[in-house]
Amino acid sequence: MRTVFWDYDINKVKLIDQRLLPFEFIISEFDDYHEVARSINEMYVRGAPAIGATAAFGMALAARQSSATNIVALRSDLSTAADVLNAARPTAVNLSWAVNRQLKVANDQAWTTNDQIRTALIQNAQKIADDDVELNRRMGFYGAELISEGDTILHHCNTGALATVDWGTALGVIFAAHEQKKNIHVLVDETRPRLQGARLTAWELQQRGISFDLIADNAAGHFMRTGEVNIVLVGSDRTAANGDVANKIGTYKLAVVAKENGIPFYPVVPTSTIDINLAHGDLIPIEERPAAEVVNVLDRPIAPPGISARNPAFDVTPNRYVTGIVTEVGIVYPPYLKHLREAVNRAQGKE
Amino acid sequence: MRTVFWDYDINKVKLIDQRLLPFEFIISEFDDYHEVARSINEMYVRGAPAIGATAAFGMALAARQSSATNIVALRSDLSTAADVLNAARPTAVNLSWAVNRQLKVANDQAWTTNDQIRTALIQNAQKIADDDVELNRRMGFYGAELISEGDTILHHCNTGALATVDWGTALGVIFAAHEQKKNIHVLVDETRPRLQGARLTAWELQQRGISFDLIADNAAGHFMRTGEVNIVLVGSDRTAANGDVANKIGTYKLAVVAKENGIPFYPVVPTSTIDINLAHGDLIPIEERPAAEVVNVLDRPIAPPGISARNPAFDVTPNRYVTGIVTEVGIVYPPYLKHLREAVNRAQGKE
Repeated sequence: MRTVFWDYDINKVKLIDQRLLPFEFIISEFDDYHEVARSINEMYVRGAPAIGATAAFGMALAARQSSATNIVALRSDLSTAADVLNAARPTAVNLSWAVNRQLKVANDQAWTTNDQIRTALIQNAQKIADDDVELNRRMGFYGAELISEGDTILHHCNTGALATVDWGTALGVIFAAHEQKKNIHVLVDETRPRLQGARLTAWELQQRGISFDLIADNAAGHFMRTGEVNIVLVGSDRTAANGDVANKIGTYKLAVVAKENGIPFYPVVPTSTIDINLAHGDLIPIEERPAAEVVNVLDRPIAPPGISARNPAFDVTPNRYVTGIVTEVGIVYPPYLKHLREAVNRAQGKE
Repeated sequence: MRTVFWDYDINKVKLIDQRLLPFEFIISEFDDYHEVARSINEMYVRGAPAIGATAAFGMALAARQSSATNIVALRSDLSTAADVLNAARPTAVNLSWAVNRQLKVANDQAWTTNDQIRTALIQNAQKIADDDVELNRRMGFYGAELISEGDTILHHCNTGALATVDWGTALGVIFAAHEQKKNIHVLVDETRPRLQGARLTAWELQQRGISFDLIADNAAGHFMRTGEVNIVLVGSDRTAANGDVANKIGTYKLAVVAKENGIPFYPVVPTSTIDINLAHGDLIPIEERPAAEVVNVLDRPIAPPGISARNPAFDVTPNRYVTGIVTEVGIVYPPYLKHLREAVNRAQGKE
């Protein structure tokens, strides 16, 4: 089962409601792109690649919803839908990447009817979703070279099948190493505030029978310092042209401590996550999410009532802490400004 | 109200059950030192200085419980009690420090009756408790010099009145700066797995009307990198002779990232926490607590059932990340091997 998909029988977007995992497995369905945007904002679905595919399907839904009777009016409705979907979350660039790809398809001068556009947007969303799975497999192939027999891998947040359409990015590399029969062990950061590690990554690793221990985020430094970690693998929500990496809050601390202990730190990043027009990471908008996510755990209070909290959802890891970046066209090493641009060009040439 | 105290009306040890705070405020009472040891192990009471005082009262209880009819037998019973109390938790040196002080009192050759010893142990436990409050005030006085008008202080775990007999260590410094009418703001690490920051530090700061935001532990690095933190203050459960600091898990990551960003990092440490006979921090025993603390939050599961977790309760911060150490005899700077020994001698000379 994919994290997000188009149900061709009923022409709706379906996705796993990840807020409830691993305690409840519920598939939500949507026939209104506003609701798709809400599902992204409220994190029914999360993970940069999954958000991208969901937004692409949201655009296909918007085309179906539109009552426009001519192409100009439909394109106007799609432009509105693009704005709504783009506003759902600010940090992951895959969202606007996917929405822009859909707008480009809709604006193709070849179309003569609205139904052609509606069909093309479903097809293109399906292609974005299918490509994601294929790209993840390739990143797994390249990334698995970094993992040796007996390695312990430190992993943050969730970057598996649930963060993508299927398979995963950083977790996909771990799955690939496991498929290659390497004996590996994973230290799973629980990843407060939303516990994607405890809820989702632990669940995915358990289902695949991969050895792991869940740890509090606070414990990661201890295990790095005492020599129990061989490599740190994370995802990314947006990577700047210079190799600065925005990823789930807490990634920056891991990267600094990894470097301090001589442990390689690799983000696993499809080129759709690379914002080649953004000079450096401090230009990446960092989403601040509701304080409720910090003062509660799974909707239950952990702190006295009436207090204030801050909740940046992502942080930026400057490129000097990044050993290399695994992409679907190979592993990119410094200098990133040159090599990331080459990787993006290579990926686009292959499309 | 003190965190732990002797109730002279009923000759029992009473302490605030911190496991339930801030949701329930319950005072537990004990007339059996085995139960006192259990209360330390299960973290009814925590924080190195509070544990020390509690163990001292536990020794006084053991003397009262003993049915020994001669001094030799009583001292033997106290030796057994010392072993039981010392085994409650391994990392905080204040535990054995306080127990050893009680043994020394019991073994004083001046005593001719068991009742003299029983009385002396209560008196000495009371002195340890009273001294703790006084030492904390002095640390507050010295430490507050480090805090400037307008500073934002990053704080980990709980080091306030609840971690001590009263007032606090690192949080005591913050209270002192607030008393001096400095406008300060505190970023409060929630401190998984047991959430001492969210539950206890937030509660103490709220009660005193000090400005603060609760944050996920993961967010601390982001705020340090983006220039929102002026100083990091933490406690310590054991500090080695060379200035390596064992403290609540997650401290090490903070210290590394603080140094990386040029932010001063100060543990606030009564000299009773300094293990002057221990050459360096890697000799400090690190307690591994039950996996249940990681796979649950406030006794509710956050991860799929049947998984494995690791739960080191402390980590060691090597002295190269420690800007200075605030003690009750002043702030100690490198070289720590020389200056910590001098501080301990000065503190003991004053006793």
